[in-house]
Amino acid sequence: MQALRNYIDRYTAGTISDADFAVVKSVFRPRKLRRRQYFLQAGEVCKHFAFVVEGALRQYSVDEKGSEHILNFAVENWWAGDRESFVMLTPSQYHIDALEDCQLLLITNAGLHDLLQAVPAFALMVREMDERNSIATQKRLYASIGHCAEERYEQLVKRHPDYLQRFPQHMIASYLGISPETLSRVRHKVLHKP
Amino acid sequence: MQALRNYIDRYTAGTISDADFAVVKSVFRPRKLRRRQYFLQAGEVCKHFAFVVEGALRQYSVDEKGSEHILNFAVENWWAGDRESFVMLTPSQYHIDALEDCQLLLITNAGLHDLLQAVPAFALMVREMDERNSIATQKRLYASIGHCAEERYEQLVKRHPDYLQRFPQHMIASYLGISPETLSRVRHKVLHKP
Repeated sequence: MQALRNYIDRYTAGTISDADFAVVKSVFRPRKLRRRQYFLQAGEVCKHFAFVVEGALRQYSVDEKGSEHILNFAVENWWAGDRESFVMLTPSQYHIDALEDCQLLLITNAGLHDLLQAVPAFALMVREMDERNSIATQKRLYASIGHCAEERYEQLVKRHPDYLQRFPQHMIASYLGISPETLSRVRHKVLHKP
Repeated sequence: MQALRNYIDRYTAGTISDADFAVVKSVFRPRKLRRRQYFLQAGEVCKHFAFVVEGALRQYSVDEKGSEHILNFAVENWWAGDRESFVMLTPSQYHIDALEDCQLLLITNAGLHDLLQAVPAFALMVREMDERNSIATQKRLYASIGHCAEERYEQLVKRHPDYLQRFPQHMIASYLGISPETLSRVRHKVLHKP
């Protein structure tokens, strides 16, 4: 749970008390996932959100042609889950599976609402997270509308250099919304830039 | 201000008191924009967020080739502003201008923080908004990565049929991240679908 405590401290300038963190702790429960195991399968309701203590997951969907489209990766100190399904209790259109062995901390929607009421520092953290998350998603959306493949790749290099080491090329291509061939061409071009 | 009150009521199941709404009112100030007037220009810090009482705006960026890319439209009962710039106080990369004569209600970052502290119903509304906004942005991001032009157009028809009546074709194309020619081809195909 120390990872979660550090995370909350980071978002709230260390203002959560031990008593409040004890409440937070009581609401999360640990879960391990092995590589390739599903955290969520399309058609299910996403009953838990997961804080990633260790490991990596991806959230993706499979279209009618069988192609996978990766919406998100989640690594240490991130969250995994399909928010729409989690909030609306509707079946998810996404799969979430473990790309590496994972240690997660799970929270239910009811647990989240209890914490938002009971622990102001937690509510503050959620608001900060939402803010950053909405900024990051907006950037990515803008990149996918307004930027060419090369710019998108360079943005990824800047923002998430770890992804490039950690995930295979075909997943990076899917995350960027380009073909593996385009990615390979773009990488070559960027590497050989004067 | 009645539009804002209705909006808050809708998000909070009518739980805001008259006294609390008086506090909310005191923080917002009205502004009119005429068609083609800028609400924000790239390079400026976005000092206000705007609740749209009447009218329509677009948030867009111009790339080095001079092409406009529309990230968002804002119509009645939506918000206009560049969140990253508003929160981080950094210069915005976006322009926001009025597509129609607009009546807006403006709030500053300091005003927003005061309200979040002072009025729980307002804080609840902001959280609900963030939740829906993050779900909607995720959907659009997913569409731009995983869907072809035709699917994106059909999603727009379903979610924002009003946009198609209200905004010119070249803006719709820009919002979808496709060329006007592709949009025209897709529209023809969708209209003539058996």
